[in-house]
Amino acid sequence: MSKGFMFVCDGSNGAGKTTVIKGIEAHLISKGYEVVLTREPGGTEIGEKIREVILDPNTPQMTDLAELMLFGAARAQHIEEKIKPALEAGKIVISDRFDAATFSFQHYARGIDLSVIKTINDLALNGFKPDLNIILDLDPEIGLQRVQQRGEGLDRLEVEKLDFLKRARDGYLMQAKAAPDSFTVIDASYSAKDVLAQCLQAVDARMAQK
Amino acid sequence: MSKGFMFVCDGSNGAGKTTVIKGIEAHLISKGYEVVLTREPGGTEIGEKIREVILDPNTPQMTDLAELMLFGAARAQHIEEKIKPALEAGKIVISDRFDAATFSFQHYARGIDLSVIKTINDLALNGFKPDLNIILDLDPEIGLQRVQQRGEGLDRLEVEKLDFLKRARDGYLMQAKAAPDSFTVIDASYSAKDVLAQCLQAVDARMAQK
Repeated sequence: MSKGFMFVCDGSNGAGKTTVIKGIEAHLISKGYEVVLTREPGGTEIGEKIREVILDPNTPQMTDLAELMLFGAARAQHIEEKIKPALEAGKIVISDRFDAATFSFQHYARGIDLSVIKTINDLALNGFKPDLNIILDLDPEIGLQRVQQRGEGLDRLEVEKLDFLKRARDGYLMQAKAAPDSFTVIDASYSAKDVLAQCLQAVDARMAQK
Repeated sequence: MSKGFMFVCDGSNGAGKTTVIKGIEAHLISKGYEVVLTREPGGTEIGEKIREVILDPNTPQMTDLAELMLFGAARAQHIEEKIKPALEAGKIVISDRFDAATFSFQHYARGIDLSVIKTINDLALNGFKPDLNIILDLDPEIGLQRVQQRGEGLDRLEVEKLDFLKRARDGYLMQAKAAPDSFTVIDASYSAKDVLAQCLQAVDARMAQK
């Protein structure tokens, strides 16, 4: 059993993942932990290159299966090269998205067969599992408004239709319901301060269990 | 059943694939066919980006599984976006490497579990199969000398040790033995002219069968 902890911060775009991740990081550093921030797709040199391919808005012709395998490749590299060594060194890893996002976006939203996703994801994970997935839950319509207010360009996945994002949201909620020990759902419509406070409570509770 | 044909030209590096492919192309064009040349990993805009990631000599830390999934992603995209539409339009596709290379390099040479490779490859192929794999067989020592004489830089896969390349060669021969209808092995130690003549004979014979 590894000495560290891995938390995943996930959920709708615009739900405040970045703010929450920085807040959890500061909280854990103040308690004396070494924290590694990372993200998916990406997190490694190879993974970040794969991320560029996945999110390129100029290649809408990407097939579902190619996308799925690119996520799988980045994840396999991420776990072996970065996450496992950090956990073995007793560090706390916080990842901006992880495998729950693949199930939400690729299965629940895009409709790829669950068994295909599970096959590729199981290979990539090779038995590994994060300690807790923190799902920031938000109506995608509000999430998209927040993203647009930040004035950032939309990547290939963010330009998907609202219906798609709603199905992805439902996917997170269904995964959380099916595995309550691995997921905590936080209502991200509250103020950033309140959302962070709830997240920190979940993090502390999970770490107290180990 | 598609109206076109797909030939794969494969085998050791330095065995003369490029020369053979151009020769087959010229031969088929002279017979009135429309020919599409392509390659793996690559062949599409997305696939070529994936190729860059796979072959980058600066990332030797790439895990076996990540590499395998990158090949799978590029292949899935290649088949759906480029190969199937060309075959349906009655064209002849000639690919510089295809899935036999994955089995040779990743299983026989690198030792990745056959079932893992088969799982990913079967997903990528989704029932598709080339009409004929032409394997240019050559002692890897001679192949490497030829590559070096051309004065090209070596990519991440070409800098593998000689032992690795020998196992890959054996992998091609074993695949050919197991599926004689899908493979033809050409001794590439002969002159370029003789090798091409044998390849053209194999191509014509295969097209006469359909």
